[in-house]
Amino acid sequence: MYSTIEPIARLSSQLARLPGIGSKTAQRLAYHLLDVPSAQATELADAITKARELVHDCPICGGYTDESLCAICADTARDASSLCVVQDARDIAAMEKSREFNGKYHVLHGYISPMDGIGPEDIRIEELMERLKQGNILEVILATNPDVEGEATAIYISRLLKSLPVKVTRLAHGIPIGGNLEYTDEITLARALAGRREI
Amino acid sequence: MYSTIEPIARLSSQLARLPGIGSKTAQRLAYHLLDVPSAQATELADAITKARELVHDCPICGGYTDESLCAICADTARDASSLCVVQDARDIAAMEKSREFNGKYHVLHGYISPMDGIGPEDIRIEELMERLKQGNILEVILATNPDVEGEATAIYISRLLKSLPVKVTRLAHGIPIGGNLEYTDEITLARALAGRREI
Repeated sequence: MYSTIEPIARLSSQLARLPGIGSKTAQRLAYHLLDVPSAQATELADAITKARELVHDCPICGGYTDESLCAICADTARDASSLCVVQDARDIAAMEKSREFNGKYHVLHGYISPMDGIGPEDIRIEELMERLKQGNILEVILATNPDVEGEATAIYISRLLKSLPVKVTRLAHGIPIGGNLEYTDEITLARALAGRREI
Repeated sequence: MYSTIEPIARLSSQLARLPGIGSKTAQRLAYHLLDVPSAQATELADAITKARELVHDCPICGGYTDESLCAICADTARDASSLCVVQDARDIAAMEKSREFNGKYHVLHGYISPMDGIGPEDIRIEELMERLKQGNILEVILATNPDVEGEATAIYISRLLKSLPVKVTRLAHGIPIGGNLEYTDEITLARALAGRREI
């Protein structure tokens, strides 16, 4: 039998740990990394190391940053009275791409899921309450994912905020732009109907 | 506008240079590498670096190895009279998986392609001739890919070897096992018919 070459096997198995990369793709990528100029492979290895070294959570919002504060928290031109609550740091980039929101963010770093043993104390809800106590936030937009855990998390937070003088909103559900009625699932369609607007 | 975080953008763009990884997937992988335990990211970076440091071409066959000779060239139990010529080092692994070949290999590191300016002198044909001159090789199996460049390379080498007392063979073409007549292209089918065998 062909004895595999240890450094290649090791690289393949490390690549196969990435999401969406199967063992065949991992092997192809490993060979690719052996074929490219050495500098390119080094740049990738270095980019991984550097990203882990330099990127950390912003101490205010919990989003990614490589500075002491993230660019959004540090930006005094943004509306500090509006706070968008998201599950993951990567959701900030998605929201920012819409160019419709000019407030600040709060990253929960997860969702409430009793089935997985994740309670309210495991995500950054306490930090959210601390920020709200400081007083100048007028609206909290709950932008957790529209799945079971995201909905449950949104409902939990909205109840918690009822006693506070703050408006709590949720992102609208409906048919995505460019979508198709025929291929829209019935739950989304029901939500779209319930949320219909006069034009 | 949201200013991107440089180390994340850099990691994404490095990942996007990998084959089959688009910019969206690259970004997802970059975020994944920020989310996993630091050790896992380090292991991947280290595996890339180590693979490039330790893996080099076997001086005899041109295949990958992290020793002075590759395991196959160093294996005296293998049949040194049979030589399988492949385009790339990764093709050795594919051949070995079939468990049908017990000879030695020769990696060309490419194919002849006048269109791309790749001539016979750019691939390891001279090294092949050197190995054949040493005399104890009785059969050369041309296992280049069944595409235009692979065929041209096989034909070129077979002509070159005509003057030598060595049997030159080519891998059979035909319908792949588990394949389907209906979905087999006409060229493969024509080859399968031409190469039909009595049963």
